[in-house]
Amino acid sequence: MKHSTSHRNCPSSGKTLCGRRRLPEDGKPKDECGVYGIFGSEEASNYTYLGLYALQHRGQESAGIVSSDGERLYRYAGMGQVAHVFEKEKLDQLYGHAAIGHNRYSTTGASFLRNAQPIRVDSNLGSFALAHNGNLVNGWDVRKELERNGSIFQTTVDSEVIFHLMARSGLTDFLDAFIAALRRIEGAYSLLVLTSTALYAARDPMGFRPLVMGRHKKSGAVVFASETCAFDITDVEYERDIEPGEIVRVTDQGVESFHPFGETPESLCIFENIYFSRPDSYIFNRSVYEVRKNLGRELALEHPVDADCVVAVPDSSVVAALGYAEQSGLPYVTGLIRSHYIGRTFIEPEQKIRDFGARIKYNVVRSAIEGKRIVLVDDSIMRGTTSRKLIKMMKNAGAKEIHMRISAPPTRFPCFYGIDIPTRNELIASSHTPEEIQKYLRVDSLGYMSVESALRAMEIPGVASNRWCDACFTGRYPILFDSSEYGNQKDLFTEFMIEEVR
Amino acid sequence: MKHSTSHRNCPSSGKTLCGRRRLPEDGKPKDECGVYGIFGSEEASNYTYLGLYALQHRGQESAGIVSSDGERLYRYAGMGQVAHVFEKEKLDQLYGHAAIGHNRYSTTGASFLRNAQPIRVDSNLGSFALAHNGNLVNGWDVRKELERNGSIFQTTVDSEVIFHLMARSGLTDFLDAFIAALRRIEGAYSLLVLTSTALYAARDPMGFRPLVMGRHKKSGAVVFASETCAFDITDVEYERDIEPGEIVRVTDQGVESFHPFGETPESLCIFENIYFSRPDSYIFNRSVYEVRKNLGRELALEHPVDADCVVAVPDSSVVAALGYAEQSGLPYVTGLIRSHYIGRTFIEPEQKIRDFGARIKYNVVRSAIEGKRIVLVDDSIMRGTTSRKLIKMMKNAGAKEIHMRISAPPTRFPCFYGIDIPTRNELIASSHTPEEIQKYLRVDSLGYMSVESALRAMEIPGVASNRWCDACFTGRYPILFDSSEYGNQKDLFTEFMIEEVR
Amino acid sequence: MKHSTSHRNCPSSGKTLCGRRRLPEDGKPKDECGVYGIFGSEEASNYTYLGLYALQHRGQESAGIVSSDGERLYRYAGMGQVAHVFEKEKLDQLYGHAAIGHNRYSTTGASFLRNAQPIRVDSNLGSFALAHNGNLVNGWDVRKELERNGSIFQTTVDSEVIFHLMARSGLTDFLDAFIAALRRIEGAYSLLVLTSTALYAARDPMGFRPLVMGRHKKSGAVVFASETCAFDITDVEYERDIEPGEIVRVTDQGVESFHPFGETPESLCIFENIYFSRPDSYIFNRSVYEVRKNLGRELALEHPVDADCVVAVPDSSVVAALGYAEQSGLPYVTGLIRSHYIGRTFIEPEQKIRDFGARIKYNVVRSAIEGKRIVLVDDSIMRGTTSRKLIKMMKNAGAKEIHMRISAPPTRFPCFYGIDIPTRNELIASSHTPEEIQKYLRVDSLGYMSVESALRAMEIPGVASNRWCDACFTGRYPILFDSSEYGNQKDLFTEFMIEEVR
Amino acid sequence: MKHSTSHRNCPSSGKTLCGRRRLPEDGKPKDECGVYGIFGSEEASNYTYLGLYALQHRGQESAGIVSSDGERLYRYAGMGQVAHVFEKEKLDQLYGHAAIGHNRYSTTGASFLRNAQPIRVDSNLGSFALAHNGNLVNGWDVRKELERNGSIFQTTVDSEVIFHLMARSGLTDFLDAFIAALRRIEGAYSLLVLTSTALYAARDPMGFRPLVMGRHKKSGAVVFASETCAFDITDVEYERDIEPGEIVRVTDQGVESFHPFGETPESLCIFENIYFSRPDSYIFNRSVYEVRKNLGRELALEHPVDADCVVAVPDSSVVAALGYAEQSGLPYVTGLIRSHYIGRTFIEPEQKIRDFGARIKYNVVRSAIEGKRIVLVDDSIMRGTTSRKLIKMMKNAGAKEIHMRISAPPTRFPCFYGIDIPTRNELIASSHTPEEIQKYLRVDSLGYMSVESALRAMEIPGVASNRWCDACFTGRYPILFDSSEYGNQKDLFTEFMIEEVR
Repeated sequence: MKHSTSHRNCPSSGKTLCGRRRLPEDGKPKDECGVYGIFGSEEASNYTYLGLYALQHRGQESAGIVSSDGERLYRYAGMGQVAHVFEKEKLDQLYGHAAIGHNRYSTTGASFLRNAQPIRVDSNLGSFALAHNGNLVNGWDVRKELERNGSIFQTTVDSEVIFHLMARSGLTDFLDAFIAALRRIEGAYSLLVLTSTALYAARDPMGFRPLVMGRHKKSGAVVFASETCAFDITDVEYERDIEPGEIVRVTDQGVESFHPFGETPESLCIFENIYFSRPDSYIFNRSVYEVRKNLGRELALEHPVDADCVVAVPDSSVVAALGYAEQSGLPYVTGLIRSHYIGRTFIEPEQKIRDFGARIKYNVVRSAIEGKRIVLVDDSIMRGTTSRKLIKMMKNAGAKEIHMRISAPPTRFPCFYGIDIPTRNELIASSHTPEEIQKYLRVDSLGYMSVESALRAMEIPGVASNRWCDACFTGRYPILFDSSEYGNQKDLFTEFMIEEVR
Repeated sequence: MKHSTSHRNCPSSGKTLCGRRRLPEDGKPKDECGVYGIFGSEEASNYTYLGLYALQHRGQESAGIVSSDGERLYRYAGMGQVAHVFEKEKLDQLYGHAAIGHNRYSTTGASFLRNAQPIRVDSNLGSFALAHNGNLVNGWDVRKELERNGSIFQTTVDSEVIFHLMARSGLTDFLDAFIAALRRIEGAYSLLVLTSTALYAARDPMGFRPLVMGRHKKSGAVVFASETCAFDITDVEYERDIEPGEIVRVTDQGVESFHPFGETPESLCIFENIYFSRPDSYIFNRSVYEVRKNLGRELALEHPVDADCVVAVPDSSVVAALGYAEQSGLPYVTGLIRSHYIGRTFIEPEQKIRDFGARIKYNVVRSAIEGKRIVLVDDSIMRGTTSRKLIKMMKNAGAKEIHMRISAPPTRFPCFYGIDIPTRNELIASSHTPEEIQKYLRVDSLGYMSVESALRAMEIPGVASNRWCDACFTGRYPILFDSSEYGNQKDLFTEFMIEEVR
Repeated sequence: MKHSTSHRNCPSSGKTLCGRRRLPEDGKPKDECGVYGIFGSEEASNYTYLGLYALQHRGQESAGIVSSDGERLYRYAGMGQVAHVFEKEKLDQLYGHAAIGHNRYSTTGASFLRNAQPIRVDSNLGSFALAHNGNLVNGWDVRKELERNGSIFQTTVDSEVIFHLMARSGLTDFLDAFIAALRRIEGAYSLLVLTSTALYAARDPMGFRPLVMGRHKKSGAVVFASETCAFDITDVEYERDIEPGEIVRVTDQGVESFHPFGETPESLCIFENIYFSRPDSYIFNRSVYEVRKNLGRELALEHPVDADCVVAVPDSSVVAALGYAEQSGLPYVTGLIRSHYIGRTFIEPEQKIRDFGARIKYNVVRSAIEGKRIVLVDDSIMRGTTSRKLIKMMKNAGAKEIHMRISAPPTRFPCFYGIDIPTRNELIASSHTPEEIQKYLRVDSLGYMSVESALRAMEIPGVASNRWCDACFTGRYPILFDSSEYGNQKDLFTEFMIEEVR
Repeated sequence: MKHSTSHRNCPSSGKTLCGRRRLPEDGKPKDECGVYGIFGSEEASNYTYLGLYALQHRGQESAGIVSSDGERLYRYAGMGQVAHVFEKEKLDQLYGHAAIGHNRYSTTGASFLRNAQPIRVDSNLGSFALAHNGNLVNGWDVRKELERNGSIFQTTVDSEVIFHLMARSGLTDFLDAFIAALRRIEGAYSLLVLTSTALYAARDPMGFRPLVMGRHKKSGAVVFASETCAFDITDVEYERDIEPGEIVRVTDQGVESFHPFGETPESLCIFENIYFSRPDSYIFNRSVYEVRKNLGRELALEHPVDADCVVAVPDSSVVAALGYAEQSGLPYVTGLIRSHYIGRTFIEPEQKIRDFGARIKYNVVRSAIEGKRIVLVDDSIMRGTTSRKLIKMMKNAGAKEIHMRISAPPTRFPCFYGIDIPTRNELIASSHTPEEIQKYLRVDSLGYMSVESALRAMEIPGVASNRWCDACFTGRYPILFDSSEYGNQKDLFTEFMIEEVR
């Protein structure tokens, strides 16, 4: 009885590539998730839906909601953007006064329906559900240990270990078990947990990822979200940030706060302000808009240039470009247009169009840039491939000079705390000097911010200073761990269930 | 912070009914599953697909296949019939030389995608998948115990406990762990288990459900299936039945057989022959066709009647009706036509049509029965409601007399071994005498087989006698257990995840 | 400026084959349509839906309903079977007290959504809709003439010409225009036409296709249908057949009958009784069941054989086989099982399974036929390919002798009146003698009915004799026309819109 | 036989509202279509797909492509955005070297699949297809006249009359018939017509809508599009505008130009530059970007104000706002964020959220506007409802003063040439003075451009002056017709097929 193990119809040459997650097409880092939770509203699932809609930029692979009516949990999740996943009929079946929701991007775990959060389980602690933004650095180790002791995992989401740690804790009080589980995990997490009678919000002791709390104006319902932009759409008043290391429990009895981890040094993600969050949000007690404007101003101070106008790579770099324009006195022009109609499966011609990947997303406004010396402001360069194409398109359209300015320091190190930055090999700044990058991009000059300037931009008058995680720029990782092991983890998580045919 | 827990838009009055599994519409018992497995063929997943297609009558709620290429497992499953779930593109991605497949009806666990089998997990014993036909009587108890020890379940399929028992066994040899898990469970199971390198087939010690083994004629691949009809479509030659209590392992090295449970008294499901299996199948070493013909003959001997013709309730009772016709010398006529075009969501007029439920499935051939004295042969009466409607339709069409004959004894007890028979309260024969049932159905006479006649019909010349499970007729359950508890289990399994919105 | 006209990705070698309609897979002729209409019921569209469901065997490519509320027409149509096309929400929007519906198979016109009937137009005669069962022999000529005069066609349905003829008639009375149009067309048609205020039923002067009329028992609504089986499901009492050449108009004022064509010789399709209609239907004043039983009896008288049992090719030949069994005294056995689970896109293994096409639809009941001398009754042989496979399967399963008996004369000529019989080249009986066919099929004997016997089987005691169209057997076409032209027409209709990408 | 004509389940009160086209939600006028055509490329349909993608802003209701391989036409169309309508498999079946495509918004005709363009017919002039941007002012009259003469229409698209006029012209030369038909119609049209061997581009004598011509750089294929942004994505070099009244024919023989209408006064749509076209496009020989910047500058000159910053209503007003900022010296800030994730069916909570319609699309950047005196630049006010909500949101977020500036004159009259401007009753400027509007909007001041300033902004150094249609501002309609009749037409077209259930 012989057989071959050859892969039929596997389109790529190496079989390990089949089914692998596509890398981000535009070369931009991706945030991994947005969370929203509400307790005490007649329309909990409707508000959660709207909150997820406002947080759509934090993840578009899947969306899910779990609600509670005080007795049971109800769950619905699907692949895609929240407005496509949910129909009225589905929301109407998500009964109850409390709900949590999740937009997923996926740093760990392949993008399959079964990985869609919130995850929900039944256990000796009852039924409960969890929505997670962040990344556990010891998730793989804990998982392997749990597996050795006979735990069986059904998703490849790293936060599934929290359920198992809780279920195996031997503790019968839910909060005790939750804290015990959190003591075992390390990394970045902004978590929402829903039981039939309570909603928990927790942030890791270093507070890598944002998590804000507010009150629904009409009903007084307590609301949590990754960013305040989700409050605006649902008529919620911002109250405060969940503190690093804090656990908040909301029940019919009211709101309680716990600090099981004591004092810990904070380490807020600087990239949330630089790139991820929406400019209309407040996170880490700051207006993202103000920080980005500061970044642009600092950039202009640090890297001035004799030019005719400032152009932003839309949409995320617009505010920094305006800051640069303001500081430099140069006019800001919309030299690039971004298409917002892009569909899931874009069809490329057989005979390749030059710079197709960039063209499908951006178009140059020729009359705005023709014959001009341009300051092109972007918020990051990862691989540099898309930037190179954009620059070529602009030169072809008649730009006389292009002076690229990055409103962040060079991204040289991967993130282990929840942001999908390419591996070191792929990060151009990891192995090339700014001069080399300038040459590769074919720009007339290139200026990155210094880490010092970036940190200075975080300082807002009237807001207490914070400590930031700048590991992606400096390699100074606030949580020590064996990063070679982690590479392993990430790979394994990614590969883990590529066999699920979808 | 007040809130109501009222259910918005819940269409039924009591909330516990929302989302509950619909009861079988035609009042017929349902088998719960069909399984098919193959090892050693280049087209393992294609053959499994065809095998499932031939076993479609055993379950139409979901279909799934897991394949192995010697290194990895690949899985795809979906809701609905196999020909709708699978497209060529999906099958092409189910690489490898071995595969197992499953058609699900669901006796336990709500009908959600995540309950679709084969279930697949990663554990300390590696990746493996399982397809199960049957029902565990202690599934709930074992599950609760595992949960108390911190196991977390993600499906409501009773056989998920097998994974957990294996993972927690502490044993490192796969077969040892498998046997250890099987020792802990009780009930009916015909199991197929696929690892990256081996295919296991196992049947419970009493052998409730069928499981046959054959060889693919061209490739020599080893094949397992619930019924031999799945062999015919895939060009497989029947070799033998898997014995009660036997475990067969197929690897590249060949086929091995294990009997870890020693000698045990067999207890084959008599209902498989009476109703479930296809008449073109051989199960339990018998031709289903022959057994059914015997049932019809015995019925004619036990309950003769002066009539003009014999009519079958199609499709399952046709062979028994032909047996009755042969023995009695009465002509067989097709007095009822069954529609095969029925869709998922049949729309009933607002102003109800009389006997709509029966009409949508059956129509009377007036000219075949008008003015006739009819023997109406059916293979079972569960609630009696559909039979009553059919009889009314036939009387309205001019049938002069209707003598109902059932090719089985009265179904008075529920099944705990994998057949979805209604609860005792719903089984008309459980609380009514044949005379009362005759009156309710408004037939001119009613004859059930005796258990003795039914058992006699199982005797085929040249085939060794077997011992049968006739608990649904006699209440003599071959495995003792607390059935009040079980009712509980079944309910809980059914309710368990009604909250999953689909 | 050069270019190639080569077809990219056209899977077949010759480009004219791309997109061509697939020939019927089982070698059976196909009827082209079922129609249902109702006037005067609050639930007109619901009843039409049910009526179409009962007529599903007459066409499964598309289904559509147009309703009227006395002012407007509402339409919905889709590809596929009626129970899949319609959801409750759609039916609820088909307002009004009158409706007509259509199941399409398609003899002319490719199978695209725009060809789904009922067709509906707005014209100088107002809005109206039409559902057609049959085939116009001069449809192509009339269409070409209309096109020459500037008419533009949007479907390839042959009956679209009726709209244009009406609109161009210059007549302002709807009935006058309708009659004027019908005078111009030749061929087979059983038509339902719905305006905002009236429902018309019309049958061509020769009455090729059936059309029956009844009354809804509760509401008194007038109902029309292709067969009476559609009456049974909707609680409608059969009143009478629409006569050949009759037009019936139903309005709020009541029912009127018109006979604009005077006396014409009738020519009823004999094949409706032999094969197409459901055995529980009455058409042409006859029970289909009785006719088929007669066919079987006559067949037994004409072609007796010394054998052990009678086997039918299910489902359509079962009644004839029972008739044969009754007359011959041989027992009827279910030696073949037919699968009813077949899906749209059945996937065949790469390494072909022998006789796959037949296996996927039929399986042999080995124990019923092993060692037996069998009379195999079928109702037609078109190409003979499927029969040959079935016979091989039966021989492989141990059938000792197979004596094939066809409950119809040899099908030697195509039909131009609405039945999709293969072309003469493909019809095995067109170019081969029964002896040659017997040899091809590898049966031990083969017996076709004579035309005389078939006609004799149509005679039912107490029912007036009728004249039949037996052109498919005899080549005696009741309407003269240039059939070489027609072949042209058919081809052109079929090809006409293959360019519509779906 | 009684019946009621009551509408079951009609959700709105008046039945004529059922199924009616929803009005644009954001109160912005809608353009009705984008067209793209190519002749002479191996990948004609792929390029057309990309061109339509770049023109997506001109219509999102449906998308379609018809291609030609020199012998046949191939068509595919669907509802929705182009990237969702087309899959690779569909494009691969659109064979050939020539293609035309269409994005539809729909000013006339309900939004049903059968109205999706390009429309394709078979006629006495052969097979051909048409894609239309514009609106015919005598479409209804011509249609009614054609219907009186027996033409039957199957869509409610106004340009369907062109087919009928051509087919009935009696002319056998395609171009002659085309010209004859165009002589009968009046209004705005930029047309692409595809036959099996030729591609025609035509623009109405007044040239209301844009239509540009270019050459594909690699293949030399001739390309037409509504705007040049569709050239950029497909690597096409702009050659020239199609002139008002010009017909261009492209065949294998080359490009020919015809001017059948002689000299006519041009009347270019001013609104294309003000609002519709993409700022990266050149239309009417002008850079849209430059015109918009000019509009902003002129606006600043005409309506200066003492303020802190300039905010645009994104996305269409950004360039005008930058022009205002430049001229006024005030800083431009991104005070409003627009969401681009909006889905088809957005679910609103039961208990309405204040200003929900605006919130779902826009969010205020509080820190950018808090305490500021703001110049809010928008390009139009139609009903004023959305503007009012936006202003309220900005005031709630702390804006100290809001001075609204409109980069266009007051929109007081409907457009009959292809732009979906609300009716006069709905246009706030039609019945209210700027003072009243200012009060309604609750802004601190309001400034509209004068018509003179707007026309001045159209003047670009080095570009010849043009004559503009400013009827929406002035009521000076360049084509005289009975506009009361037209209202009728529009209504009728809209209502015409609301009965099509979708």
